[in-house]
Amino acid sequence: MTRFPLPPGSTIGILGGGQLGRMLALAAARLGFEVVVLEPETDSPAGRVAGGQIVAGYDDDGALAELAGRCDVATFEFENVPAAALERLQALDVEVAPGPRALAFTQDRVEEKNFVRRVGAESVDFAPVDGLADLTAALERLGVPALLKTRREGYDGKGQVWIRDPAEAPAALAAIGSRPAILEARADFVRELSVIAARGRDGAVACWPVGENRHAGGVLRTTSAPAPGAAAVQEKAEAIARRVLEGLDYTGVLGVELFELSDGRLLVNEIAPRVHNTGHWTQDGCACDQFEQHLRAIAGWPLGPTQALHAVEMENLLGAEVERWREIAAEPDARLHLYGKGEPRPGRKMGHVNRIRREA
Amino acid sequence: MTRFPLPPGSTIGILGGGQLGRMLALAAARLGFEVVVLEPETDSPAGRVAGGQIVAGYDDDGALAELAGRCDVATFEFENVPAAALERLQALDVEVAPGPRALAFTQDRVEEKNFVRRVGAESVDFAPVDGLADLTAALERLGVPALLKTRREGYDGKGQVWIRDPAEAPAALAAIGSRPAILEARADFVRELSVIAARGRDGAVACWPVGENRHAGGVLRTTSAPAPGAAAVQEKAEAIARRVLEGLDYTGVLGVELFELSDGRLLVNEIAPRVHNTGHWTQDGCACDQFEQHLRAIAGWPLGPTQALHAVEMENLLGAEVERWREIAAEPDARLHLYGKGEPRPGRKMGHVNRIRREA
Repeated sequence: MTRFPLPPGSTIGILGGGQLGRMLALAAARLGFEVVVLEPETDSPAGRVAGGQIVAGYDDDGALAELAGRCDVATFEFENVPAAALERLQALDVEVAPGPRALAFTQDRVEEKNFVRRVGAESVDFAPVDGLADLTAALERLGVPALLKTRREGYDGKGQVWIRDPAEAPAALAAIGSRPAILEARADFVRELSVIAARGRDGAVACWPVGENRHAGGVLRTTSAPAPGAAAVQEKAEAIARRVLEGLDYTGVLGVELFELSDGRLLVNEIAPRVHNTGHWTQDGCACDQFEQHLRAIAGWPLGPTQALHAVEMENLLGAEVERWREIAAEPDARLHLYGKGEPRPGRKMGHVNRIRREA
Repeated sequence: MTRFPLPPGSTIGILGGGQLGRMLALAAARLGFEVVVLEPETDSPAGRVAGGQIVAGYDDDGALAELAGRCDVATFEFENVPAAALERLQALDVEVAPGPRALAFTQDRVEEKNFVRRVGAESVDFAPVDGLADLTAALERLGVPALLKTRREGYDGKGQVWIRDPAEAPAALAAIGSRPAILEARADFVRELSVIAARGRDGAVACWPVGENRHAGGVLRTTSAPAPGAAAVQEKAEAIARRVLEGLDYTGVLGVELFELSDGRLLVNEIAPRVHNTGHWTQDGCACDQFEQHLRAIAGWPLGPTQALHAVEMENLLGAEVERWREIAAEPDARLHLYGKGEPRPGRKMGHVNRIRREA
């Protein structure tokens, strides 16, 4: 049995070797933890900064057993890790946080929205879609435009398509590979917000100030945090985060994307059971950032402080935008975070920059 | 020929695998650089967070050739690396920063003090000591108490002994192994300060606010920065740092330890040609810390900003003090930095904590 709190020198296992895993690994190193990354690709962003890496698929039983033997607690950096992998680790007596139940809920968009409503939060209106008949009926009820998404997988705008006319239904279904889907009514929101929150092993909850997000093509471009006028929505956003965290009996950091409506209501758009792109601003705006906080939570440490020391404007560097490193390096208040990815493919998240705004 | 500025994805070679190398490697990762560490010990603090490590002595020609083949620029994390290793790397066409000349000056305490005076800064009075006759004469001139130090090597209070009575001369010489030495007059200082400064490849100089340091048994315990009343000494300290940096034609970060006298004069106590323990506060007090700055300088990037966003109290965690991680983790404004060292031997630097003081 793992004993908590885990002392420095303990080993954190991370499923997934992308930039979120990399930033978790760097935060872990600062706290004196060892890291082992399990990731199918060689030479991954996280693997290159971790003391240990296992290059294998998430469904590789031998690899999972090796990870189990080497780590004191396991976590994941992206939500498309199979829940079965977490269950396998648990069966091998490894503490896994967040657990497979939280992961499973958020892997299925219909389950996720049902869960959100069950805990007393609101979401956009929606309907499960298992074929053209479902879709036609759903379009009739929800109206157009409406957003068709695969029920599972898909991120950063992948696996989703807007339907602007009911006649587009067959083409839309084909465009997402005719997979099980969900149709979501368009939210008539005034802006997109998110709240990053953490829950410790002792049940304590801490939320950072709400951030305001701008997306383009389904991909996050910027987060401003604390969001302008955050005070008015902070309490509501925290109440939602707390219900979600407690409803999932969650341990770790979680991101909740929200739509703010003109009447002030907040709808839950999406839950990410992990550190979140819209929480990167905390690295340079707070004494404890989301990566350290996630490690504190899963290691059974007390949660760290979440107030903003500075307002921060976070900008993602997508694809060739990473070439702007040279001008960003010359900006006086810019903190550059690059992920060590090789090829700057269009739209690929290559890094981000946090611009510290003194006045806040 | 290396072309500067080095783009992200370039590889930084680091000689030395201790905590300074570790924190350099973590800063490098954030900027998207790759890291290769050359260090004689396996499983070093820096090696475990670097993508590449070469376990070999600094005088191992094959290892130096391997490092040369793998890195775009080489640096070092502690000043007892042989200058010959840097010369060997240069002969292999590798850019090395700081260069062997700066290293050689600071490896010999007599050369260092001669250099300090040559560039127009002050130091305590001193005399080279090559044997008992020298020491007796020096004690007569400088008086007691006086500090006998080996000319080379020694750090954190090692290789030095106070002489309080001329009759102790033979024993003192024996205590430092009868090696070539230096006798330093006692400085009647009111406090110990340090200035951390950087010089870029373009000759630009940037200094952080002066810190106030407290030592015990020759080992740094705390740094408060900006030092109380720093404004009065900042200009003088920066002028000294600039003379030293320019006199050494230096590239990178350098620490200058200073004695502040009651009449306001600053004496140079020691120059460290590397990132410095008294600069750790910059990690949590500034938008650009000393580790990032060193990388910016050696990679030919513009220097980052050095103003303090927060006042910080840095405390070293020595030996078993690292066990206090649990209470420190519960402090609201404490940022913990642990080095991943195994055995907490007495006096060993295991980590540090930066306490952010809001009011500054």
